[in-house]
Amino acid sequence: MSVTAARGFTAAGLAAGIKGSGAPDVALVVNNGPAQTACAVFTTNRFPAAPVLWSRQVLTDGEAHAVVLNSGGANACTGPQGFADTHATAEHVAEQLSAIGPEVGAGEIVVCSTGLIGELLPMPKLLAGVDACISGLADDGGLAAARAIMTTDSVSKESLHTGAGYVVGGMAKGAGMLAPGLATMLVVLTTDADVDRDTVCRALREATRRTFDRIDSDGCMSTNDTVLLMASGASGVRPADDEFAESVFTVCADLARQLIKDAEGASKDIRIDVTRAATEDEAVDVGRAIARSNLLKCAIHGEDPNWGRVLSAIGTTSAQFNSDSVDVAINGVWVARSGAAGDRRDGVDMSGREVVIRVDLHAGSADATVWTNDLTADYVHENSAYST
Amino acid sequence: MSVTAARGFTAAGLAAGIKGSGAPDVALVVNNGPAQTACAVFTTNRFPAAPVLWSRQVLTDGEAHAVVLNSGGANACTGPQGFADTHATAEHVAEQLSAIGPEVGAGEIVVCSTGLIGELLPMPKLLAGVDACISGLADDGGLAAARAIMTTDSVSKESLHTGAGYVVGGMAKGAGMLAPGLATMLVVLTTDADVDRDTVCRALREATRRTFDRIDSDGCMSTNDTVLLMASGASGVRPADDEFAESVFTVCADLARQLIKDAEGASKDIRIDVTRAATEDEAVDVGRAIARSNLLKCAIHGEDPNWGRVLSAIGTTSAQFNSDSVDVAINGVWVARSGAAGDRRDGVDMSGREVVIRVDLHAGSADATVWTNDLTADYVHENSAYST
Repeated sequence: MSVTAARGFTAAGLAAGIKGSGAPDVALVVNNGPAQTACAVFTTNRFPAAPVLWSRQVLTDGEAHAVVLNSGGANACTGPQGFADTHATAEHVAEQLSAIGPEVGAGEIVVCSTGLIGELLPMPKLLAGVDACISGLADDGGLAAARAIMTTDSVSKESLHTGAGYVVGGMAKGAGMLAPGLATMLVVLTTDADVDRDTVCRALREATRRTFDRIDSDGCMSTNDTVLLMASGASGVRPADDEFAESVFTVCADLARQLIKDAEGASKDIRIDVTRAATEDEAVDVGRAIARSNLLKCAIHGEDPNWGRVLSAIGTTSAQFNSDSVDVAINGVWVARSGAAGDRRDGVDMSGREVVIRVDLHAGSADATVWTNDLTADYVHENSAYST
Repeated sequence: MSVTAARGFTAAGLAAGIKGSGAPDVALVVNNGPAQTACAVFTTNRFPAAPVLWSRQVLTDGEAHAVVLNSGGANACTGPQGFADTHATAEHVAEQLSAIGPEVGAGEIVVCSTGLIGELLPMPKLLAGVDACISGLADDGGLAAARAIMTTDSVSKESLHTGAGYVVGGMAKGAGMLAPGLATMLVVLTTDADVDRDTVCRALREATRRTFDRIDSDGCMSTNDTVLLMASGASGVRPADDEFAESVFTVCADLARQLIKDAEGASKDIRIDVTRAATEDEAVDVGRAIARSNLLKCAIHGEDPNWGRVLSAIGTTSAQFNSDSVDVAINGVWVARSGAAGDRRDGVDMSGREVVIRVDLHAGSADATVWTNDLTADYVHENSAYST
């Protein structure tokens, strides 16, 4: 299902030998139309990978015919040769698609890569993998595609939302920004709704802003992050803008939660609800500061309701609040009230996987939720042994 | 030596029972004059501990007679009672000092605390400790004081610089911002140079900016950080401003290095030299972004010269650079050139404790050095088990 649940899409995924392990590593998702509307959100890292540089260009006209994805190599920090390789991959996909259907140009092919930074891709293997994907394109190829983009993911991530006469499906890989070295999140969403480019972009940006942008496993920003939404219009149904936006949000929120749940080395999922901030941006800033405190993340790992580390993280932001009127609850117990000790810490049960930190800033009426994970010895082990 | 090396100073340090372990936990450093010039730099955390709030007030007139310090409790996020306790401590020190010498007011007593956030100090024990310190004040009490401010430090930290007819000495505790829960850096510097308040403040601020502000073990900012410089004028020697500033810088740099070397759970000291930045601020921003990358810190722990994680950290900053003209050397090998793979990673020897990352931004002529540590399973263990 997932990316092939929407009418108009075919997909494939298989092992092309890019990964030493022999696991699947090339995926292709094709939009057979009638429309080929598309929009994407990319990493803001200033060392964008070659496929990000390429795909930004592809999407300037708001259309894409297909996306080819590989795991096993990020093609980031690879210089002119890396960009030439991405270009060659897109050319190859376009040629092969043109051979089996209508004429397609390289400029209609989005490219995504994930894996180790700084190494060139094994192009003969990748292009042979593309050929095999073309032959294998299927109406039910979504799962194979979702599996082929996995890196350190322990499970593939797919989601599907059924609207009134149309669907939005998606696949994702990555563990927030946390996966070792291949610290990349790739998301491909498809829909058969009949929606124009502006609607697609607005829905995607708003959904991304409130979902993928608010998961922050380890504060590290990838060079390759890409979230792509392609619309075929094949359902012939034109949903109201708000309805469509809500559908896209639902799928993004589900995939974001799946990413956090599968974060490398994590033993706790931490939900940070910041309430009564002066503005939503300030609520996000406060949530993110808490999410990035290594000291707090270690404490949560140790099931220690250490509200002092929450306050000291909040204290590094420029959000509006008075230090003597901030409350913090951990799993429902208000362990800090008015910026000092509150109810008894003993009452906090942190034995479950999900830990909810609730902050009341008493500074306004804006809220935001940020997700992160705990910091564990497993995280250190997995990330200290990756490229060697 | 350290804080009592400079003429005019006496100190004491002893166990008052604040720490459950019975280790020393109260220290007193007294400036017997003739001058009582003082200046301090405090944490910018917006949840400043009670002693920080108090000491800021004390130092508004540029004078301090003594500093009393305790470990075993941070007195942070303790509300009005916490502040009243700090005030009472200062009153008590002033009364006791007045009983053995010239009249001293509470407003001349700086207070520093370090330990767990959110708990009130055991005041009877602390005040009894103050009494014992008063009785024990000695010309050679510096070492005892340095030991009494230790928390998770494995060794006491002292430093001494001898100028032309004057000295600057100092003691420090903390491990950058890294020590668990008691994530606090306390530094007391003393000098017998005859220097006015402006000279003291300028020298301290400039030294702090280039030393303590550039060590960043885990990106966490304490509620209690304090760096205090007291000048007695007892040498009668008035050094040139530049000479004095250099002396203060030397002692601060030495203490900062000692803090990084003793960081909790660390197995590597990482020096990040950022060169040819457009401005010094941008060089610091880039250095700090690298220092805060958990992915990179794990890689260094694994002795993996993972330059991709260096570039992706640099890519999160707004510093001026072109992504295709940034070079990175790790321990002398330029593993990244022009934003892509450079010399062979195999040539990098990372077996030693110190790892030097050198970044050439090719964007200007400003440099800065930032120090950090690797991220280890020991860090996680120590910080997940602290307050429970």
